[in-house]
Amino acid sequence: MRQTFDETTDPTFGPRHLPLIRAAMAAQGLDGFLVPHEDEHQNEYLPAANDRLAWATGFTGSAGAAVILKERAAVFVDGRYTLQVRDQVDATSFEIRDLVEGGVPAYLETAAARGQAIGYDPRLHSPDALDRLKAAAARAGAELRPVTPNPVDQAWGAARPPQPIAPVVPHPLQYAGEDSATKRARVGATLSGGADAAVLTAPASIAWLFNIRGGDVIRSPLPLAQAILNRDGSARLFLDPQKVTADLPAWLGNGVRLETPEDLPQALAELRGQRVVVDPAQSSAWYFEALAGAGAEIVRGEDPCALPRAAKNPVEVQGARDAHARDGAALARFLHWLATDAQATPPDEVEVVSKLEAFREATGALKDLSFDTIAGAGSNGAIVHYRPTSRLNRRAEAGSLLLVDSGAQYLDGTTDVTRTVAIGQPSAEMRQRFTLVLKGNLALARVRFPAGTTGSALDALARVALWAHGLDYDHGTGHGVGSYLGVHEGPQRISKAPNSVALRPGMIVSNEPGYYKEGAYGIRIENLQVVTEAADIPGGERPMLGFETLTLAPIDRALIDADLLTAEERAQLDAYHAQVLAVIGPQLEPAVRAWLAEACAPV
Amino acid sequence: MRQTFDETTDPTFGPRHLPLIRAAMAAQGLDGFLVPHEDEHQNEYLPAANDRLAWATGFTGSAGAAVILKERAAVFVDGRYTLQVRDQVDATSFEIRDLVEGGVPAYLETAAARGQAIGYDPRLHSPDALDRLKAAAARAGAELRPVTPNPVDQAWGAARPPQPIAPVVPHPLQYAGEDSATKRARVGATLSGGADAAVLTAPASIAWLFNIRGGDVIRSPLPLAQAILNRDGSARLFLDPQKVTADLPAWLGNGVRLETPEDLPQALAELRGQRVVVDPAQSSAWYFEALAGAGAEIVRGEDPCALPRAAKNPVEVQGARDAHARDGAALARFLHWLATDAQATPPDEVEVVSKLEAFREATGALKDLSFDTIAGAGSNGAIVHYRPTSRLNRRAEAGSLLLVDSGAQYLDGTTDVTRTVAIGQPSAEMRQRFTLVLKGNLALARVRFPAGTTGSALDALARVALWAHGLDYDHGTGHGVGSYLGVHEGPQRISKAPNSVALRPGMIVSNEPGYYKEGAYGIRIENLQVVTEAADIPGGERPMLGFETLTLAPIDRALIDADLLTAEERAQLDAYHAQVLAVIGPQLEPAVRAWLAEACAPV
Repeated sequence: MRQTFDETTDPTFGPRHLPLIRAAMAAQGLDGFLVPHEDEHQNEYLPAANDRLAWATGFTGSAGAAVILKERAAVFVDGRYTLQVRDQVDATSFEIRDLVEGGVPAYLETAAARGQAIGYDPRLHSPDALDRLKAAAARAGAELRPVTPNPVDQAWGAARPPQPIAPVVPHPLQYAGEDSATKRARVGATLSGGADAAVLTAPASIAWLFNIRGGDVIRSPLPLAQAILNRDGSARLFLDPQKVTADLPAWLGNGVRLETPEDLPQALAELRGQRVVVDPAQSSAWYFEALAGAGAEIVRGEDPCALPRAAKNPVEVQGARDAHARDGAALARFLHWLATDAQATPPDEVEVVSKLEAFREATGALKDLSFDTIAGAGSNGAIVHYRPTSRLNRRAEAGSLLLVDSGAQYLDGTTDVTRTVAIGQPSAEMRQRFTLVLKGNLALARVRFPAGTTGSALDALARVALWAHGLDYDHGTGHGVGSYLGVHEGPQRISKAPNSVALRPGMIVSNEPGYYKEGAYGIRIENLQVVTEAADIPGGERPMLGFETLTLAPIDRALIDADLLTAEERAQLDAYHAQVLAVIGPQLEPAVRAWLAEACAPV
Repeated sequence: MRQTFDETTDPTFGPRHLPLIRAAMAAQGLDGFLVPHEDEHQNEYLPAANDRLAWATGFTGSAGAAVILKERAAVFVDGRYTLQVRDQVDATSFEIRDLVEGGVPAYLETAAARGQAIGYDPRLHSPDALDRLKAAAARAGAELRPVTPNPVDQAWGAARPPQPIAPVVPHPLQYAGEDSATKRARVGATLSGGADAAVLTAPASIAWLFNIRGGDVIRSPLPLAQAILNRDGSARLFLDPQKVTADLPAWLGNGVRLETPEDLPQALAELRGQRVVVDPAQSSAWYFEALAGAGAEIVRGEDPCALPRAAKNPVEVQGARDAHARDGAALARFLHWLATDAQATPPDEVEVVSKLEAFREATGALKDLSFDTIAGAGSNGAIVHYRPTSRLNRRAEAGSLLLVDSGAQYLDGTTDVTRTVAIGQPSAEMRQRFTLVLKGNLALARVRFPAGTTGSALDALARVALWAHGLDYDHGTGHGVGSYLGVHEGPQRISKAPNSVALRPGMIVSNEPGYYKEGAYGIRIENLQVVTEAADIPGGERPMLGFETLTLAPIDRALIDADLLTAEERAQLDAYHAQVLAVIGPQLEPAVRAWLAEACAPV
């Protein structure tokens, strides 16, 4: 079993660890210290060794920060985590504050005192964030001071887990579709502003560029590393020697110099006089300071691998189709179990997660889950960032909804799918809400759009049906997905928040509108879809882009009120279900296949 | 007759005026001079005296620029004007270049030579634009030099029209809905960053803030003026004494000091040590330099009147309804004429424009057109920025479409409406295209959306029906509209281009999707609609905003293919037509009313 249901922290973390951190601060002459959620690699999911915020406070959410002063401390979370933080963090040790409204800078401005020295670890903060923090501290008359070592790391001491050293292996061309030398040459040739080199620190970019995969970060095959890419396509890759597998040097070839992380400062110093691209959203202030100190000319620009990585090549797109066909069969078996055995004896969330993982494991191709499965029974389904634990575990009762959001990492692709199923008889309100969500999902699946259109421009299509009924959901509609890489990948995004990245052929995005009734139930329907060049339309005058849906799993017909669908929507849904049956059906044993045929019948 | 059909320039302008401008440049020691379209007030429509670009080049579009060097010159236009510029500008005098791709900076970089002095008039360039121009000149080794007087003005000499001196009059409270002292107090209290004062240069903001109207700019009741608003609501208004009417000083009251434009430099100098808001999108570099020179602390921020002006108060919204009811009756008479007499004897564009103006004039309330009526017969309808002239004038032939985009300025509101009508029997293709455009218009009219939603997020709703057929239109979907002010008003906008301004109750926007077949016909359907707080929706959980359609005019049923409409769309269209008949019908004489009843019958 890959997923566990333990809680890795508890509210005693703050009271137990704060005195240790304060002692380490005092030894360095600090009056305060900043603890962001981000680590040295700006990952979404952190290796345990780098989850300093969780160790210091108990809070395990995917975004947040803490400020630890001598006499007081505060933890900052956004609206998604207001319930979770009260459950995990000791309120006598930490004030709980809003990460977005005011956030850390506003707190510093009032809580720091004139003449105080507040420490920060320059490897953990982006330069833009740091500028805001420095300005706030200055308004309080305090000073922000870069410190090494990090007092949290000192306090953590021997109890801190070791840095991960998962082996880094070649990612074969049959999955990558383009060799690394070709990737490096084309990315090097298009460095922004004709720069001489780029410093790469995002693990996903390094994995993509060199066609390698690792395992340093749970739920994604990311290698923690850094690299310098030169304009001519040659590169230096900084990787812990313990992670270098036997085949790796030959796989990387002559164009890549393999070095250790200890060589990085000297390599940056050698960039003196060169124009060097660094991404202020991906690389911490440490890199900017090191390059500026070396006398390099810094070009602030987007990670040059981000767009090429996001627009998958035909081999990667075919890999995604294959991965989804395989994953779809596992999902069909799981949904069949939910529709039969599980209706008779309603399972709890832990059983649901375990069953689904077992079906995926049985494919023989599973490398990892792409994230911990969210199985939200009843009111737990309304908590968008829910993760079941032994303590929170709920049984799926008759008359309730079960929301299951899950995904798998296969060598040929990463999946991410949400299905909401009725346990027993759903209410009329549940069916109406579900059908409104479905209308949004269908609208975003069938849209055609001209080149240049951003995800922000399409977001409303997934919401108008809900809006018309005075309803909405408080999360984005779609995120990018990697190819056997991170399940959340930029730079494209489908959301209300403005995003200037146009959708391009080969980009994979999720389509996941939802509806959440607090204390009652949650609904989400999520498919992955890839941007394609749409087939010529009779009478059409302009080339259009469109989406091909990758995810193949039936949508619970018990939750669909077909009277609320237009003829066009019904035809679209029936065509989708026919495709699910055609691709998944032949992989299944007779009983499951018969069930799938029924689940995919026209509405 | 208000509208004329003359052409105000011709292609001889360039060859005749360039030598005069070059002589004035030489007298000031300049190797080149920049001629933007913008004038001192950053108006969209210019007084004739300020249309320097037209006088220098012959080009009369609403956006553009020219660069005049000793031996060569170039004019820059965007994609809307590529045909028009070749018609108006002598190609041996001016190279024709793209305003957007590269634009003036890229040209300067290659065309200017090391050591050259290129002049500019600092009153005509925004500081941001100027920074880009200076950087480009520097890369060529040339210098940008501010000059006074403007060499174009010198060359123009006695032939230049005088500055307009239209009387400035009170705009009564029965239309404005809020007195100026109240407006000034609330705007002053919310100056960004707690600033001490704001410098206002946008004529529409000045008109709104002081409840005054003028007539310096054709087609809009704008007074050319400047103002300084203090945090306490007191203000200084700089206005040519020739424009001050007898009632004005008392109307402005004690809180407003009335001064002359010549007093402005001294007034800016008196802002030494104060924090002063200036809008870099509205105010030229001259203001920034004057304030910096005076020792004021400049706060770059949006014109503080822009948002309050855009969100109309209940009196202004009721005024808009009244104006549209009046305008709708004139439109009904016009459309009736088009449906009867004009079908028998097809008119030309000039007759169409004249007839419509006469119907509006007959209301007795017309203050001005809100822009020159666009009447595009047949292929002229496909030219988005078409304006009929005696030379271009076309007859509306049987089997063609006639596109009429027009508007009126009334004391209680500004209108802007486009209707496309069939002359004779339309083709199946025309009806299909028209119905797709109509679907977009209906979608954007009925949408409900949560607070915080921008026009950019809604734009796609007006396009998806066209996109699905491989079609699109190359203009925005909606612009803001003033209350007896400019017919194009920010800051909100409905377009593909990102816009971060959320729609708020009281904002009036146009809803004008279209379709254009080059060389054949054009289609556009345009209504104005005001943002409202949507009525509670049964079962709804969140407050929503919506739109109330203000424009009341029938949509040509001969062009609607009802089979392409959903039941929801048919019901929406029928309800709209029923409202048109209910509000407009009682104002009409029996024959027109009978026609309107038929035109508004259910589809």
